[in-house]
Amino acid sequence: MDKTALFSLSYGVFLLSAKSGEKANACITNTAMQVAAGPERIAISCINSNLTCEMIKAGGVFNLSILDETCPYEIIEKFGMHSGRDTDKFAGMTLPLDKNGVPYLDNHTCAVLVCRVVESRDLGSHTLFIAEIDDAFKMGDKAPLTYADYHAKVKPKAQKPASDKKIIAWKCKICGYVYDGAELPADFVCPWCGHPADDFEPVYEE
Amino acid sequence: MDKTALFSLSYGVFLLSAKSGEKANACITNTAMQVAAGPERIAISCINSNLTCEMIKAGGVFNLSILDETCPYEIIEKFGMHSGRDTDKFAGMTLPLDKNGVPYLDNHTCAVLVCRVVESRDLGSHTLFIAEIDDAFKMGDKAPLTYADYHAKVKPKAQKPASDKKIIAWKCKICGYVYDGAELPADFVCPWCGHPADDFEPVYEE
Repeated sequence: MDKTALFSLSYGVFLLSAKSGEKANACITNTAMQVAAGPERIAISCINSNLTCEMIKAGGVFNLSILDETCPYEIIEKFGMHSGRDTDKFAGMTLPLDKNGVPYLDNHTCAVLVCRVVESRDLGSHTLFIAEIDDAFKMGDKAPLTYADYHAKVKPKAQKPASDKKIIAWKCKICGYVYDGAELPADFVCPWCGHPADDFEPVYEE
Repeated sequence: MDKTALFSLSYGVFLLSAKSGEKANACITNTAMQVAAGPERIAISCINSNLTCEMIKAGGVFNLSILDETCPYEIIEKFGMHSGRDTDKFAGMTLPLDKNGVPYLDNHTCAVLVCRVVESRDLGSHTLFIAEIDDAFKMGDKAPLTYADYHAKVKPKAQKPASDKKIIAWKCKICGYVYDGAELPADFVCPWCGHPADDFEPVYEE
């Protein structure tokens, strides 16, 4: 099986926001699709180790800000490359809240989907949530950012290691999986989250 | 709720093939995403009234040919705009078969995912299938066809009705839903399958 064949599937890019108690958190995801009409339902898949995933399980609600083609890397980096366990990702931002009190983006966003979980399935690495859409509204008229365009146009190109230290491993920036070894194969696929080799960063010797 | 906000979600375009007994059938779908890694799993959503959906329920296997940007409208029309109940869509074609004996496309295709259903959820209008990927292979190096590019570049523009007859209703070409009335609102969303007004065709008086 060539796991890189899965990279031909097309996706958008979304800010996925949730709230549990008084704390809100959000991450970047590419896995969301409409799965039913009348009533409208979507499915999203979320890495189990993510705080946002835990908060959706606890709070039962989330929203998706559908990012548009003007979205800068800073937003992806801020919400997608850090854990809400270490930082308050919404600190210093004043964002609108949906009817459940969950923040959503008011810029670089095509539309917002306000969702309530009706069912969830733990699939090991990820949890699949099926949710009913309680509210949906457009925010702008730019084209949606596709996951392919994010990789080709938004994400910075990999740079040569700035350090003279020896590389001893590679760490997946999406889920934290560590590959032991100095050379990460170009066709490597993360066994925890399914992301490709260019989502890994080097780990240097101490 | 503005249901057209859902049209900002990004998708690919796929030939979804299934087999039940000796009969194979296929349809065009845009709803497939990877939902887990280790083992790799995908989710697809299928309109319940489709023969392909019935055959996946009966046979428990399917494959997805991920269409590429060179795919002509003829393939979409042949597999997407007719029912396998009325015609043998594979008649006259000699296509390769996957390990389950299900045909897949050998042209205009980025990659093929060979899938086995592990769970299904009936969501009313659609059934959501969660499937394990038993095999995956690349077929070409063209970019995948996105659903947005299908609408913008592949699908023929709506033509003025060729008939002088009076339009009495509009029928969804995707699922068969009929809207009674001569004027279909431009922002209409099919209540059965969620597709937009430009997927409807006129129904004329007898």
